[in-house]
Amino acid sequence: MNKLKIALCQMNVIDNKQENILKATSMINEAAKHNSNFIVLPEMFNCPYSNDKFVEYAENEKSSPTLDSISKLSKKHETYILAGSIPEKEDSKIYNTSYLFDKEGTIIAKHRKMHLFDVDVEGGIYFKESDTLTPGNKFSVCETDFGKIGMGICYDVRFPQLAQINVNNGADILFYPGAFNMTTGPAHWELLFRSRALDNQVFCVGVAPALNKDSSYHSYGHSIVVNPWGEVICQLGQKEELKTVEIDLDEIKKVRNEIPVLKNRRDDLYELIEK
Amino acid sequence: MNKLKIALCQMNVIDNKQENILKATSMINEAAKHNSNFIVLPEMFNCPYSNDKFVEYAENEKSSPTLDSISKLSKKHETYILAGSIPEKEDSKIYNTSYLFDKEGTIIAKHRKMHLFDVDVEGGIYFKESDTLTPGNKFSVCETDFGKIGMGICYDVRFPQLAQINVNNGADILFYPGAFNMTTGPAHWELLFRSRALDNQVFCVGVAPALNKDSSYHSYGHSIVVNPWGEVICQLGQKEELKTVEIDLDEIKKVRNEIPVLKNRRDDLYELIEK
Repeated sequence: MNKLKIALCQMNVIDNKQENILKATSMINEAAKHNSNFIVLPEMFNCPYSNDKFVEYAENEKSSPTLDSISKLSKKHETYILAGSIPEKEDSKIYNTSYLFDKEGTIIAKHRKMHLFDVDVEGGIYFKESDTLTPGNKFSVCETDFGKIGMGICYDVRFPQLAQINVNNGADILFYPGAFNMTTGPAHWELLFRSRALDNQVFCVGVAPALNKDSSYHSYGHSIVVNPWGEVICQLGQKEELKTVEIDLDEIKKVRNEIPVLKNRRDDLYELIEK
Repeated sequence: MNKLKIALCQMNVIDNKQENILKATSMINEAAKHNSNFIVLPEMFNCPYSNDKFVEYAENEKSSPTLDSISKLSKKHETYILAGSIPEKEDSKIYNTSYLFDKEGTIIAKHRKMHLFDVDVEGGIYFKESDTLTPGNKFSVCETDFGKIGMGICYDVRFPQLAQINVNNGADILFYPGAFNMTTGPAHWELLFRSRALDNQVFCVGVAPALNKDSSYHSYGHSIVVNPWGEVICQLGQKEELKTVEIDLDEIKKVRNEIPVLKNRRDDLYELIEK
């Protein structure tokens, strides 16, 4: 038995940074009462999901009121916090960046969204992140007291290569803070989390903002946890909700023994290489 | 519009090679009446799914009554036939091999199952193909009058790398004759076909034997066609059934325009290489 508790903070994000930080704070405080080992916030938890707001809300991580608040909370509660993502400014560039805080309030890993969301579905969603954002170029896997964490953000989940590389680098749990929408969410959200989990025989966790009908971008919500057998063990609805889910990392070993896809991979015939 | 018709021959396979060939023949004749462009047979359509039978039923492709029959049928009906798979003997080795016949009855491509099914699920299925079979070492993508065909067999579908390489090589439709079982079928069959289709934005087709309760191996059936959006457009039950499904290859271009995951892939950061 190798159990841990993950708190999914499916928070309602509004057009007020201070209020968003307060909401995150109250959900983290509540999650800490449930003895959560990882508290996870959604993608862009401090900022509405729109290009003009990314510019307006962006913070440099060296002087970030948002990250300072999260750091204090992780230290106070002695718990890991995966701070979904925020618009991160460095020099003149803005990134969509996820931060992992350890139990002392220190940032031990960060991931800049590597694949930017530029889509145009007929009769559905149109969004072009690359109008304002710059993509990250690094894979992010981090050792913790509760297994190795592989990081990705939202659209990154559509790329099996990122998941595979993170798992090749030892990840036991793949975290994707994400904000799918009302077109791609019903069509693909669950399918993608299940397939990343099953193909790699790891846990896969998505945490989304709640659906806010007043905002220009309608998040699908549906924060999710999938086990290494590809089963959904928790999935929320569209509303704001905090949910704590217990998982057992020993399931990874069990599934890999039963259907040894990683061992049966034909490394003699193909290889996914990092450049 | 770039339409074609695929016939799924979910046939009941029994312990009698001649009867199996006759059953395949009658389903192919019926499928031809529906003007099918590709008629697809299941994995091991001429042989019960068990290691001792693979040895007993194996044929050399240079003198194969099974393949001769299929060749004649494809020529007679002027249609492509994907002859699911048969146990193929070459020298002292046995392979699980799929053959693609063109409209003149010529074998234009073959695929030897690359990943052998060696699994042991607690309280569920145990099977070790590698006790008798030798794995193939080649990727198989073939040009036809109706797009490019990527070939795989059953357990191969669990390996995203094979699908990706076939799609990198131009495949529009991924065919996997397969025989999942009553443990892995309900858990993973649909999920795997949907994720291979969605991740690669291609059509993905699985054709299985019907469930035969008298045999030692219980096939899940559920022959399936998934479109590039990841939607199941046809899925059969467990019983013997012939079904013709029309697909439109132009959907591939549409989905790739809407959510350009292949274009947005970070080829500067990672690459799946063939060795």
